[in-house]
Amino acid sequence: MAQIAVHVDYPAWVNEIVDWNKTYATDEERMRLAIAISSENVERETGGPFGAAIFEGASGKLVAVGMNSVVRLNNCTLHGEMVAFMMANQRLGSFTLGAAGMPAHELFTSCEPCAMCLGATLWSGVRRVVYGAGREDASRLNFEEGPVFPASYKYLEDRGITIVRDVLRPEARAVLERYRIKSGKIYNG
Amino acid sequence: MAQIAVHVDYPAWVNEIVDWNKTYATDEERMRLAIAISSENVERETGGPFGAAIFEGASGKLVAVGMNSVVRLNNCTLHGEMVAFMMANQRLGSFTLGAAGMPAHELFTSCEPCAMCLGATLWSGVRRVVYGAGREDASRLNFEEGPVFPASYKYLEDRGITIVRDVLRPEARAVLERYRIKSGKIYNG
Repeated sequence: MAQIAVHVDYPAWVNEIVDWNKTYATDEERMRLAIAISSENVERETGGPFGAAIFEGASGKLVAVGMNSVVRLNNCTLHGEMVAFMMANQRLGSFTLGAAGMPAHELFTSCEPCAMCLGATLWSGVRRVVYGAGREDASRLNFEEGPVFPASYKYLEDRGITIVRDVLRPEARAVLERYRIKSGKIYNG
Repeated sequence: MAQIAVHVDYPAWVNEIVDWNKTYATDEERMRLAIAISSENVERETGGPFGAAIFEGASGKLVAVGMNSVVRLNNCTLHGEMVAFMMANQRLGSFTLGAAGMPAHELFTSCEPCAMCLGATLWSGVRRVVYGAGREDASRLNFEEGPVFPASYKYLEDRGITIVRDVLRPEARAVLERYRIKSGKIYNG
């Protein structure tokens, strides 16, 4: 068979929305970027209402962003968090963001991670996860989170990963609502 | 920032090992392919000891294969199952393998899926998952499976996905042992 390959890139608008050189000092600033990405993904109709960003925790330096790209790239694995992990790995030339000598990294995501993304969080090497909207907000749109249980979070916390919930939740939820009004596609519904 | 992008391809040996035109009639034949891929990945030193393949369930037609590519491609998300899902999506031009009108698809994987891959299984649209070695076999190498619980499997089964365990387990486990002897890298250990 002819060789098949997969190419993952950003939609063309990414550099209009993302200031790569800014220092993102606070949790709110970092979450605001993740939400801006989720919102732009809806307005430009490039994917589901989910955005993510990875920062160096102490410096606030932006490493990578991600946006849901399942439909745009015909790929069931490309949730916002997964795109952010892949792009951060690519940029740093490392399969872990938690290597010895690296600064601690953090994932900000506009909505609570699904089972796949929570698993990937463990493999990514990030030390802190901050999310905006919760799984109940997503399920109101019939987006499913999959097999995530309180024990799943405990598993991550036991391995030193901090979980922070509900940061700018109303703003994050508003993007989900906007997607619903635009009658966006519910893949994997 | 310069545009970053991720390219996912197969190692050069894939077409030496995989017969794309063969009909894989039985569970054992299908699992034997997943194990052969895991084994070749170890011998060629292109990744961890994990292989996967996706078939049309009824016809036995091979759709895609995957092999652990975390270290080769510097990407924490590229477990064998994830590569198989991405390549199957790419080949069929569809973000789901469970669309109306499609034949039912099945995932064969040489080792029990981790939390990320089990989550992705749900989004992939496959109707059946068959694995060889179990999580205890992988943890003997200090490979971790992440937050997977009996309730995780029940969650998938409640959504109509059949899980089949321990197919050719000794052969699958032997590849893990071979990797240990070669002192293969334990990423995400």
